[in-house]
Amino acid sequence: MELHANLQSLGNKKTQYRYDEPDASLLERFPNPFAHANINPNGVTGTLNMVCPEFTSLCPVTGQPDFATIVIDMQPDQWCVESKSLKLYLGSFRMHGEFHESCICRICNDLVTLLQPKWIKVEGRFTARGGIPLWPSAEYRQP
Amino acid sequence: MELHANLQSLGNKKTQYRYDEPDASLLERFPNPFAHANINPNGVTGTLNMVCPEFTSLCPVTGQPDFATIVIDMQPDQWCVESKSLKLYLGSFRMHGEFHESCICRICNDLVTLLQPKWIKVEGRFTARGGIPLWPSAEYRQP
Amino acid sequence: MELHANLQSLGNKKTQYRYDEPDASLLERFPNPFAHANINPNGVTGTLNMVCPEFTSLCPVTGQPDFATIVIDMQPDQWCVESKSLKLYLGSFRMHGEFHESCICRICNDLVTLLQPKWIKVEGRFTARGGIPLWPSAEYRQP
Amino acid sequence: MELHANLQSLGNKKTQYRYDEPDASLLERFPNPFAHANINPNGVTGTLNMVCPEFTSLCPVTGQPDFATIVIDMQPDQWCVESKSLKLYLGSFRMHGEFHESCICRICNDLVTLLQPKWIKVEGRFTARGGIPLWPSAEYRQP
Amino acid sequence: MELHANLQSLGNKKTQYRYDEPDASLLERFPNPFAHANINPNGVTGTLNMVCPEFTSLCPVTGQPDFATIVIDMQPDQWCVESKSLKLYLGSFRMHGEFHESCICRICNDLVTLLQPKWIKVEGRFTARGGIPLWPSAEYRQP
Amino acid sequence: MELHANLQSLGNKKTQYRYDEPDASLLERFPNPFAHANINPNGVTGTLNMVCPEFTSLCPVTGQPDFATIVIDMQPDQWCVESKSLKLYLGSFRMHGEFHESCICRICNDLVTLLQPKWIKVEGRFTARGGIPLWPSAEYRQP
Amino acid sequence: MELHANLQSLGNKKTQYRYDEPDASLLERFPNPFAHANINPNGVTGTLNMVCPEFTSLCPVTGQPDFATIVIDMQPDQWCVESKSLKLYLGSFRMHGEFHESCICRICNDLVTLLQPKWIKVEGRFTARGGIPLWPSAEYRQP
Amino acid sequence: MELHANLQSLGNKKTQYRYDEPDASLLERFPNPFAHANINPNGVTGTLNMVCPEFTSLCPVTGQPDFATIVIDMQPDQWCVESKSLKLYLGSFRMHGEFHESCICRICNDLVTLLQPKWIKVEGRFTARGGIPLWPSAEYRQP
Amino acid sequence: MELHANLQSLGNKKTQYRYDEPDASLLERFPNPFAHANINPNGVTGTLNMVCPEFTSLCPVTGQPDFATIVIDMQPDQWCVESKSLKLYLGSFRMHGEFHESCICRICNDLVTLLQPKWIKVEGRFTARGGIPLWPSAEYRQP
Amino acid sequence: MELHANLQSLGNKKTQYRYDEPDASLLERFPNPFAHANINPNGVTGTLNMVCPEFTSLCPVTGQPDFATIVIDMQPDQWCVESKSLKLYLGSFRMHGEFHESCICRICNDLVTLLQPKWIKVEGRFTARGGIPLWPSAEYRQP
Ligand SMILES: [Ca+2]
Ligand SMILES: [Ca+2]
Ligand SMILES: [Ca+2]
Ligand SMILES: [Ca+2]
Ligand SMILES: [Ca+2]
Ligand SMILES: [Ca+2]
Ligand SMILES: [Ca+2]
Ligand SMILES: [Ca+2]
Ligand SMILES: [Ca+2]
Ligand SMILES: [Ca+2]
Ligand SMILES: [Ca+2]
Ligand SMILES: [Ca+2]
Ligand SMILES: [Ca+2]
Ligand SMILES: [Ca+2]
Ligand SMILES: [Ca+2]
Ligand SMILES: [Ca+2]
Repeated sequence: MELHANLQSLGNKKTQYRYDEPDASLLERFPNPFAHANINPNGVTGTLNMVCPEFTSLCPVTGQPDFATIVIDMQPDQWCVESKSLKLYLGSFRMHGEFHESCICRICNDLVTLLQPKWIKVEGRFTARGGIPLWPSAEYRQP
Repeated sequence: MELHANLQSLGNKKTQYRYDEPDASLLERFPNPFAHANINPNGVTGTLNMVCPEFTSLCPVTGQPDFATIVIDMQPDQWCVESKSLKLYLGSFRMHGEFHESCICRICNDLVTLLQPKWIKVEGRFTARGGIPLWPSAEYRQP
Repeated sequence: MELHANLQSLGNKKTQYRYDEPDASLLERFPNPFAHANINPNGVTGTLNMVCPEFTSLCPVTGQPDFATIVIDMQPDQWCVESKSLKLYLGSFRMHGEFHESCICRICNDLVTLLQPKWIKVEGRFTARGGIPLWPSAEYRQP
Repeated sequence: MELHANLQSLGNKKTQYRYDEPDASLLERFPNPFAHANINPNGVTGTLNMVCPEFTSLCPVTGQPDFATIVIDMQPDQWCVESKSLKLYLGSFRMHGEFHESCICRICNDLVTLLQPKWIKVEGRFTARGGIPLWPSAEYRQP
Repeated sequence: MELHANLQSLGNKKTQYRYDEPDASLLERFPNPFAHANINPNGVTGTLNMVCPEFTSLCPVTGQPDFATIVIDMQPDQWCVESKSLKLYLGSFRMHGEFHESCICRICNDLVTLLQPKWIKVEGRFTARGGIPLWPSAEYRQP
Repeated sequence: MELHANLQSLGNKKTQYRYDEPDASLLERFPNPFAHANINPNGVTGTLNMVCPEFTSLCPVTGQPDFATIVIDMQPDQWCVESKSLKLYLGSFRMHGEFHESCICRICNDLVTLLQPKWIKVEGRFTARGGIPLWPSAEYRQP
Repeated sequence: MELHANLQSLGNKKTQYRYDEPDASLLERFPNPFAHANINPNGVTGTLNMVCPEFTSLCPVTGQPDFATIVIDMQPDQWCVESKSLKLYLGSFRMHGEFHESCICRICNDLVTLLQPKWIKVEGRFTARGGIPLWPSAEYRQP
Repeated sequence: MELHANLQSLGNKKTQYRYDEPDASLLERFPNPFAHANINPNGVTGTLNMVCPEFTSLCPVTGQPDFATIVIDMQPDQWCVESKSLKLYLGSFRMHGEFHESCICRICNDLVTLLQPKWIKVEGRFTARGGIPLWPSAEYRQP
Repeated sequence: MELHANLQSLGNKKTQYRYDEPDASLLERFPNPFAHANINPNGVTGTLNMVCPEFTSLCPVTGQPDFATIVIDMQPDQWCVESKSLKLYLGSFRMHGEFHESCICRICNDLVTLLQPKWIKVEGRFTARGGIPLWPSAEYRQP
Repeated sequence: MELHANLQSLGNKKTQYRYDEPDASLLERFPNPFAHANINPNGVTGTLNMVCPEFTSLCPVTGQPDFATIVIDMQPDQWCVESKSLKLYLGSFRMHGEFHESCICRICNDLVTLLQPKWIKVEGRFTARGGIPLWPSAEYRQP
């Protein structure tokens, strides 16, 4: 099996950026290599950590821009998220107004729907507004 | 439902500052987005971390100013605290005399009364007086 | 009830310093605000962290000075230690000769006798002698 | 017994480097000193931590170079990995195209096959592509 | 009882250094102050942390020098190690050839034999050879 | 003279954000307090340092977003830049495509035209694209 | 000569704090020890560095609090500033509205008037408002 | 004038990587925006700083890989180096054997030949071999 | 010539500590090796940097202890200070009351009188009193 | 010309280590690539920085081990020092007794005699003895 057979965005000649609305259809997945016995003959357990430092959205009340680093930890089951598609998905919040807590809730739900991971944690390290940084987190564990 | 329908302080044109007495009525809350199934279809768990570096009060015995960073961690249940109202509330200790331990006890109790969170921790990182920093913490867990 | 009614050293006009012998009678206590229902209506749990960076004693064998940062963590029960009296108590080791391990053992015992806390940990971060820093710790938990 | 009797690469006069394909046959092992009673009369437990900051491979889709620090923690059973042979093995990924997750899965499996350790964790701290660093980890525990 | 009645090396006028062979007879012990009721009336638990940054030995295969920081954590039972004698003991590895893993195994065993502690951990933070630092650890717990 | 008599954006109830084109007309200035003898009776020399960490523009060739911290040092002459108007001006690059070097050249020129400072330096600390961060700087000194 | 003969605030039993208006009359000075031949027989040159991390004032337009660290470097001539009186002076800005640049200009001028130093630099490291920290500096050199 | 009219590598759909020999023909240049009066009406001075953390070459004697961060500072005259072409050029050292000092000498000369800058500095921060990091630098100034 | 022929304190069997009064007679010197042609055939220039982190004295007004790190930089001429004697000298301020500025002025003068160095700088990094650290420095240059 | 034609130690099959006496004959040099027009057609200026963190010698009075990091900066003229030979030379101080200042004076002189550089600086960052680190430096400039 070719792990990267269906990926659209990685190595593509012309990337399309959209900035107007969070768009979960931008996310792509590929088969988790840890789930295949020929690649993982001893059955070792695989986990992932991703740090996305350039997330930006708009405040839904005042319209001023918000900035955050999004930190994702997960143990994939059958699927991994392709990292360039994740970057495009996070970029689609750029001109969208939404509270910090709702953004993180949405990102975690979109990844759970796409990947059905064994577990996942998404943390938003937003920079301070009015001197107080607010960092929401969302967690999910496969039932 | 509009999450921010009832907020008074965020985006308001002219903020009123009071500095004479801790005033829990300054605190505002809004519905926790993680508690609504349309926003959170996979039922992920949401937590919050807030760091408030510019807290200042007065020593009740000597009258000299005390400075602290207030760190709040919590898992909200039905309500979140609005962060600008939290800033105004913390600012209301400015000309009030109270021991470090009592300030933290009061802040934690006022937030528990407002939000009834699943759990909360409030820590006061006071700067040193006489070379010894004193950092009280208060914790609460929903019965 | 006035929390600070019996404190001797805080706000006193002329502090008396003694440097010749560890003197537990210098320590003062005041009622723990977390233990009073009018201050703590939701029954939140209170803990304390204190960092005392300017401890110095003498080596009992060679007479040369030792330096340490004393770190105290505790959950008080009925009593808190007053921090200026703690500073005077720690200062009373200045011209006294005692091994690192014994100093920490003594400080922890003196605080347990004074406060009968729910639990306490005292750590001595002594600077290096002969290139090797030695950091003893002492712990106590209410039976 | 001479612990280093069969080692080929350490202190060898002319090292052979290969860069075209991951080659597990480059790995060498020697008897774990903690497993021998004359060296370890009190039966203390031995663990190892290794940090390999100069790993580099190629992206299988775009051909551009990837860089990582590989961190290995383990409790050996009968065998330890010889560190110069580990360096040669990691160097053999230099001109090979493979996804981050697959590289870490392969390294962990090759070490498990060689050493049958009590437990092992392999982490790949890859530098960012497109602003997002991706850090996969693999873990194994002896049944 | 005088805790330091039998110490040979501390405050001695002329220290003897040996550099040719690890020599456990250089280690000295003194009674643990936490184990005596007159010093420890409340029965607090004592632990120790020591960091020894200037350890150096030779590689048994190539003869080149190795460098490490030795970190020791323990809960003594009846005896503590005297820190100047520990420094002399660690110094005796200076011209001795031994693998990293064996050095740490030996140091832990020599301390267990001397002190019979409740538990002990010895970690060797060796500097990199060929770009890969190897850090072995050894642990013991009183049966 | 009232220093802040003509400021439009500071304390205004509803800020207008524009994101489509760099707009120097958003910049506002106020009289430099150091230039007035009643405020500065001893004629001390005043300089300013500003760090703007949330600058973002688009690449003119590929359309992907660029991020930078803009650092400004200057010695004002008759005028200071109002900092909220500076934030709005920098925000107007958000959906505009321009090379790193040209952005910095433009910002420096717009500030020189507005303020005619004694000297000014503008540095753009852009985050890496393709692994290589490019930091242009621009400097001006009054003839 | 007694260097501290005329000091009012240091060691005084009851300090008076004022918070309503910057008050240069709170500042006290004492003779510079470096300027007296019996203390300084070799005529060494003396300079001072002071870091005051807890400065706070109000914004004159919006009324919200500003926070800064004030850093002072100087070479005194005949007089030094007494540090407790400096703290009281800086504390008197607490409820006063004034722009960042004006505060630093005022502090530098008040110290120049009091001390007539050989040279002085005053820097205000204000925390960010709207994401942009503004750090003004003022310098003076004796003609 | 279109600044980026002749660039080949930026935004190209399929990049060609070569790894066998340093190839100065991979470098591309574009007109320096600071040199054009319509972009730079006030004649501000422009300089550039680039940090390239992923340089790797081979040792010409032993064949083992070397790793470095290349740091470039310059003041361009008529031309700037295009940063993606710089990355491809630095990548062409990957399978080439050359001493640290010669690599830096070559990179500086190739950039001087391409750009004829007002001045340039190239520093190679090579990681340690045998415990000793060697960092050569090369500097040039237009006559 | 034997460089260390006249040293009293280094390697001495029983060190005498005094703590009551600064005592310049505790300082010892030895011939500067850089000043002798057989040790320094190429006539290289020698300088020294010393960091003394454990200085403590008393406040002359309140009696409370002060703590500092003393940093010394110098270019010796004919003499160097012996470092153990410097430690004993700095230790003699322990129970002595003197202002920060006077302590540094005294230390610099005592070293100038002893060594007549080409140049010297003495800095006292005192820990904060009342929240404001005061760091005096003293400098001397041979006429 | 082959730059590395005469090097003895780099890539040699069996290195000889000596530890009894500083031995300048261990140092090797090779022609400076910056001094050859075919390698350096634009005549750029070359400088070097080397950090050697594992230097160890013995105290000439007490016999105890000293540890240091040796930092070397230079502009070579006709010759560069080969870095493996530098490591062997620094290793030859291992069992030799010499004061800190004399070690640095000797190293600088041995490098000046070997290389006749345009300028050189050698700094010894020795670890603390008795709490005071002593860092000597030596500098030379071609007449
Ligand atoms: Ca928001
Ligand atoms: Ca919010
Ligand atoms: Ca208080
Ligand atoms: Ca208190
Ligand atoms: Ca001791
Ligand atoms: Ca990949
Ligand atoms: Ca070894
Ligand atoms: Ca080994
Ligand atoms: Ca660009
Ligand atoms: Ca303001
Ligand atoms: Ca302002
Ligand atoms: Ca090389
Ligand atoms: Ca070389
Ligand atoms: Ca003082
Ligand atoms: Ca020495
Ligand atoms: Ca010495």
